[in-house]
Amino acid sequence: MSNPVSNAVSNPVSSSPSNAPHEGRKPRLLVQKYGGTSVGTIERIRAVAQRVASARAAGFDVVVVASAMSGETNRLIALGQQLSKRPDPREMDALVATGEQVSVALLAIALHDLGVPARSLTGFQVKLRTDSAFMKARIRGIDAEQLIETARQGVVPIVAGFQGVDDEGNTTTLGRGGSDTTAVAIAAALGQGVACEIYTDVDGVYTADPNVCPNARKVRRISYEEMLELASLGAKVLQIRSVELAMKYAVPVHVRTSFSDAEGTWVVNEDESLESVVVAGVTSDKNEAKVTIRRVEDKPGRAAGLFEALADARISVDMIIQNPSADGSTDMTFTVSKNELDRAREIASKVFASHEIFVREDVVKVSIVGLGMRSHAGVAAKMFRLLADEGINIEAITTSEIKVSCLVAAKYHELAVRALHDGFGLGA
Amino acid sequence: MSNPVSNAVSNPVSSSPSNAPHEGRKPRLLVQKYGGTSVGTIERIRAVAQRVASARAAGFDVVVVASAMSGETNRLIALGQQLSKRPDPREMDALVATGEQVSVALLAIALHDLGVPARSLTGFQVKLRTDSAFMKARIRGIDAEQLIETARQGVVPIVAGFQGVDDEGNTTTLGRGGSDTTAVAIAAALGQGVACEIYTDVDGVYTADPNVCPNARKVRRISYEEMLELASLGAKVLQIRSVELAMKYAVPVHVRTSFSDAEGTWVVNEDESLESVVVAGVTSDKNEAKVTIRRVEDKPGRAAGLFEALADARISVDMIIQNPSADGSTDMTFTVSKNELDRAREIASKVFASHEIFVREDVVKVSIVGLGMRSHAGVAAKMFRLLADEGINIEAITTSEIKVSCLVAAKYHELAVRALHDGFGLGA
Repeated sequence: MSNPVSNAVSNPVSSSPSNAPHEGRKPRLLVQKYGGTSVGTIERIRAVAQRVASARAAGFDVVVVASAMSGETNRLIALGQQLSKRPDPREMDALVATGEQVSVALLAIALHDLGVPARSLTGFQVKLRTDSAFMKARIRGIDAEQLIETARQGVVPIVAGFQGVDDEGNTTTLGRGGSDTTAVAIAAALGQGVACEIYTDVDGVYTADPNVCPNARKVRRISYEEMLELASLGAKVLQIRSVELAMKYAVPVHVRTSFSDAEGTWVVNEDESLESVVVAGVTSDKNEAKVTIRRVEDKPGRAAGLFEALADARISVDMIIQNPSADGSTDMTFTVSKNELDRAREIASKVFASHEIFVREDVVKVSIVGLGMRSHAGVAAKMFRLLADEGINIEAITTSEIKVSCLVAAKYHELAVRALHDGFGLGA
Repeated sequence: MSNPVSNAVSNPVSSSPSNAPHEGRKPRLLVQKYGGTSVGTIERIRAVAQRVASARAAGFDVVVVASAMSGETNRLIALGQQLSKRPDPREMDALVATGEQVSVALLAIALHDLGVPARSLTGFQVKLRTDSAFMKARIRGIDAEQLIETARQGVVPIVAGFQGVDDEGNTTTLGRGGSDTTAVAIAAALGQGVACEIYTDVDGVYTADPNVCPNARKVRRISYEEMLELASLGAKVLQIRSVELAMKYAVPVHVRTSFSDAEGTWVVNEDESLESVVVAGVTSDKNEAKVTIRRVEDKPGRAAGLFEALADARISVDMIIQNPSADGSTDMTFTVSKNELDRAREIASKVFASHEIFVREDVVKVSIVGLGMRSHAGVAAKMFRLLADEGINIEAITTSEIKVSCLVAAKYHELAVRALHDGFGLGA
């Protein structure tokens, strides 16, 4: 137990009520972020208010961040899209930002009704400054003093997530999942070691998708780095930018559910992640497609020409494989997101006008992630062996310091994940 | 035609498109306010955007004020009330203000889609400063410069009605119908003679309720004073505070409908209201109840004691009648709003503990309103005669300079209104 802060806040709700706040000692600060399903109905909002009140009773000064009620953001976007095929981005931000303003006001009303003073705050009011990139703005700063002063007066600040204000006073939004980023940024601004609880519709991070691996285990602690790899690979528990921000400012993040008091998963610094296993988790991504260009002349500049053209078109390429053959030609293979496949194929056809181009969509990328593999040799080899033992052919491979990914036929999805999960001893 | 401004804007939509703006001469300013039904659906919002675009094409710089989509304010209030029997007023304002923020963003999107630059503005952004009386705030000032500058750049400012911001940066609302007041206040701030079009679900002010008098006529022009009496008597076309504000700053107000291009009713200064008839309209109010205290000793201070107690309880008394009889006692009668009847009766029972108290709810107040009656004797007498001719007994009477009201049994409601409407020659 090397992190006193995260231990201290590990379960505020179940802490003894004798730790009443404002009794001589300085209350500890805690940021709680509630996602759309946590505030999805009047009953859920009431339950969240009760949870906030309990954390206060347990000795915490709480700053709350809330998302829009589930479904509300999509409803607002649909209204805007009915009026225009390309709705003005500034106005879309003004429109969708109201979703969070509704939920924070409702949450404040619910807290008042429990006798807990609370104050809803929009992005404007909390002076969460961003750049002017509407629909994907980046945070520049937050008026932490106001939040600390409000909390010190015994009033719970309830901050609308996902939104900010630019230098011209326009409302901006941070993009999908931006409320996580708001919460982590606030925790970072409130001071060293302030923890951030992220209440979401899953109760933590698992060693694999429990729908695929029934024996998947909830991870107690995971490092920021591992979480980044898992998040970018499709384990959509936390928005990736919020993890980057948490890592940058060493904000301990507790991913949990508001539907129970169970502990979730702590996302923390590497040296605090107890479970320094070789592989932390297995994940998969069905959203990639493979493009192969046959028999390209194997000479300098051919690959560069292709990938420059793809980069110019802002198409992200994930895996790249090039296998020179004896006759001086090579097959060039790369993967892209399925929704960029058509554009990628078009570009490849231009660059290699006289070559055969094959695409394949029925593939899945399975990956193992873990800090431990930096110091353990043979992890990749073991992965390839585990897949081979099941008769699964590997179509492409990429590796990073803490991740190995293999592209396999989509029909092997569940089989591959289970084989790796069990093979690396992750089962409960 | 004594008012060049209101003539100029009398029908911007149907004006010749050759009056294009920004061609050498200074465009005229016009405020258009669209009510909830005018922006009630995506199709209606599109129609409103078209109307704004037409006004611009006709040579106007338009500032738009919009209400929430119809039903939206009630939906939001219901959410808040589900969470608390007495929801916090600051948070209710933060909650309901989102309704207008949605409609102004949608309207801006629709205008952009027509190629018309537009910018939605919240109460915060337009710096519409108010006091801190949540749910019934009063306007203190508006940043007109910003609006004029925005319009001058060819961008249509679309201001969220009904909302403002107090000195502490809290969102406030102006109370029901407050968007009318926002629009008139903006027109006043924009400068002398700037007209304000109020688009509502009725197409103007009528000489009587057309549901009661099928031959009721739309009034072309009416004075602020007459409109105030009509509004306070229940002809709910314009919010009363907006009429007071229009009178104070001489803002010409054009009440009309967004469902057609028909002229509505101009509310203007007395000397501009062409139709200086004796009686401008007949109106009625079913929301009053009568309280009678029998056989009160007829001595000084008895009435004062009662009405002071009612005033202390903030109960508004409308009509008061006291008829001394020969035996030294008097019957004391007054009327109050039906929703304050129980409290009024209770107070009367305390002040006159040993007296009989009667209440009557099946009454209606019918009134005639007109500037002309200041210079015409016998108008009240004629009203009483017209009612008597129909066999209608008068239960109470009040008069002001430009209004005479009679309380009659509720069953005579339609009969009384029709008799007065025809008797004063108001029919079409």
